Amino acid sequence: MLISVDWGTTNARAWLLDDAGEVRLRASSKAGMGGLSQDEFPAALEALVGAWRADHPDVPVLLSGMVGAKGGWAEAGYVGCPFDANVLAEGLVEVAPGVRIVPGAKTLRTAGTQPVRDVMRGEEVQILGALAQEDDLTQLSLPGTHSKWVALSRGRALDFTTYMTGELFSLLAEESILSRSVGEPAATAFGTAFEDGVEVGRTTPVTSAIFGVRTRDVVGGLPARQNRAFLSGVLIGHEVANAVSAAPFTKIGLCGQGSLVALYARALKVLDADVVKIDVEAATLRGHRAVASAAGLLESGS
Amino acid sequence: MLISVDWGTTNARAWLLDDAGEVRLRASSKAGMGGLSQDEFPAALEALVGAWRADHPDVPVLLSGMVGAKGGWAEAGYVGCPFDANVLAEGLVEVAPGVRIVPGAKTLRTAGTQPVRDVMRGEEVQILGALAQEDDLTQLSLPGTHSKWVALSRGRALDFTTYMTGELFSLLAEESILSRSVGEPAATAFGTAFEDGVEVGRTTPVTSAIFGVRTRDVVGGLPARQNRAFLSGVLIGHEVANAVSAAPFTKIGLCGQGSLVALYARALKVLDADVVKIDVEAATLRGHRAVASAAGLLESGS
Repeated sequence: MLISVDWGTTNARAWLLDDAGEVRLRASSKAGMGGLSQDEFPAALEALVGAWRADHPDVPVLLSGMVGAKGGWAEAGYVGCPFDANVLAEGLVEVAPGVRIVPGAKTLRTAGTQPVRDVMRGEEVQILGALAQEDDLTQLSLPGTHSKWVALSRGRALDFTTYMTGELFSLLAEESILSRSVGEPAATAFGTAFEDGVEVGRTTPVTSAIFGVRTRDVVGGLPARQNRAFLSGVLIGHEVANAVSAAPFTKIGLCGQGSLVALYARALKVLDADVVKIDVEAATLRGHRAVASAAGLLESGS
Repeated sequence: MLISVDWGTTNARAWLLDDAGEVRLRASSKAGMGGLSQDEFPAALEALVGAWRADHPDVPVLLSGMVGAKGGWAEAGYVGCPFDANVLAEGLVEVAPGVRIVPGAKTLRTAGTQPVRDVMRGEEVQILGALAQEDDLTQLSLPGTHSKWVALSRGRALDFTTYMTGELFSLLAEESILSRSVGEPAATAFGTAFEDGVEVGRTTPVTSAIFGVRTRDVVGGLPARQNRAFLSGVLIGHEVANAVSAAPFTKIGLCGQGSLVALYARALKVLDADVVKIDVEAATLRGHRAVASAAGLLESGS
C-alpha cells in the first residue's frame, strides 16, 4: 500500500492506494505549502492522513510538489536531467519516519551564448506516471500556470522547458490595459476566436500579438468574450507552436486539468499535431507508485 | 507661431513655438486625459496655456495623444497607413476655435490567415518629427509602455507594429512570481545581466525566456538587481530582434526617454544594428509644426 500526497502551494490532496494501485480513500485540504510555516507541516499531514496511518501504521507516505521547495517542510533539492524513477527514488528526502518528499528536477540549456536553467517541482511525478501509461511518448505537455513541455525517450525525461502561459494570461486579462477589452470568463462557446488567436500567436512575436486584443476592441468592435478567448489562443498558440517546432514528429501526451487540456488540444489541432490525453490524477498516482517501487518501499508484494 | 500640446493619459505638456520653431515658453500639468471628464478639457487647456493665448490670441493650438481617444476631449479617429503630414492635417478635428486634435493612426496586417489591426495615438506626430530631422530613416523605434516600430520610406510611415514591452516588464517585475526574484530599480551598473537577457530574449520563445529570471534566483543564486536587468534584457531583446529581423538593412532611428533609449541602444548593439538617436521633445515639436504647416495654419510666414 502507499499514501500519496500531492502538496501544492494552495492545497494538498491525498490518496490511499492498495497493493494493486487502486484508490481506496481520498482526502484533500486547504493547508497548502504557501500558508504553513516549517513546523506546521507534521500536524497538517496528521490532519490530512492521520486516520489512514493509524489503520495502516507501516504504509509509506510520499509527498511531492511545493512541500519540497525552499520554505516548505524541507528543501528536497532538484535532480538533473535525464531522470527516471530510480533517479527520483535516490533523491527522496525522509522528513519523518516513513514520510518522504520527492525531489524536483532541473535542466540546463544554451540560448545563444547564454546558459539557461529550468526547474519543475511536482510535474516530475506526473511525467513518470504518463510514461507508465504510454511508454512510447516522446513529448509531454503539462499545461498550467507555468506550463511544462518535456522531451522523453525510453521511459526517461531528457529535458524540459517552462512557459509562463497561465500566469501571463491571468496578469494580462486582470491587470493590464487588455483587461478593459476582455470579458468575464464564460463557459459557453465563443466561435473561432480561440483558433484565430492560435493562428496569430504561432505566426507573430507574442508581445506584439497580445496587443491585438486591444485593437480588436478599439478599432474592430469585437465582443469582450471573444477577445478573452483570442488572448488565450495567442498565448497557448505561441507556446504549442514553439514546443512542437522544437521537436517535430513526436508522439505527444497531454496531461492536465480538463478545461485547460481541451484548449491545448484545440491549439494542437490547429497545428495538425495529434495528442494522447492522460488523466492528471492517474498520472500522479502512477508516478508516486513508480518512485516508491524504485525506492523499495512497495516490497510487501504490491 | 504655434502652441503645441502633448496630452497623454497622466499628464500634459505644452510649448509656445515662435515662427522659427524655437521654444519660447513651456508648461506642464498633471491634468492627464485619464483624470478628466469630457467637459473639463476646455478649462484644463485654459489653465495650461490660457496666458499664452491671451498674449497671442490668433496662435493655433495643436493637441495630440490620448486627448483624442475615446473618453478624451473628442474622438479624433485614426488615419490609415501610409500617412504623412498631409494625411494627418486632413484628419484634424477642431474642438474649439483655433484648437485642433491630431488623429491617431491605424494599420492592418495579416498573421497567418488572420487580419491583425494595430493602432497608435501620439507617436504619429513624433514619427513626422523624426523624419523632419533624418529624412532617410527607414525604420523608427519608439520605446515605451507600448513600444512602436515604424517602417518608413520617403517621408511617409508605411506600417507599424506595437510591442507591449514596457507594460509586460512592469507586470512581471511587480505582480508576477518573478517579483520575488528581481530587486528594486537601481541606477547603478549591473554588469552584463542586461546583455545576457538580450541574448536569451532574441533566441528563446519569450514566455519561456522570462522564467529564466526565477531559475537564476532559485537555482542560480544570482542577485536580484541583476535579475531585474536580465528581465529587461529578455523583453527588449525579444522586441528588437523581431523588429530588426522583420526589416534588415535599415537605417534605424531611436526616439524616446533617456534611460529607456539607452537600454534599447545597448540591445541594438548586441544585434550589431546601428541607430541614430532622436530627441523625443524635438521630434514632437517638429511633428506638430509639420502638421500645422500642412494644414495651412502657419501661413503668417513661419
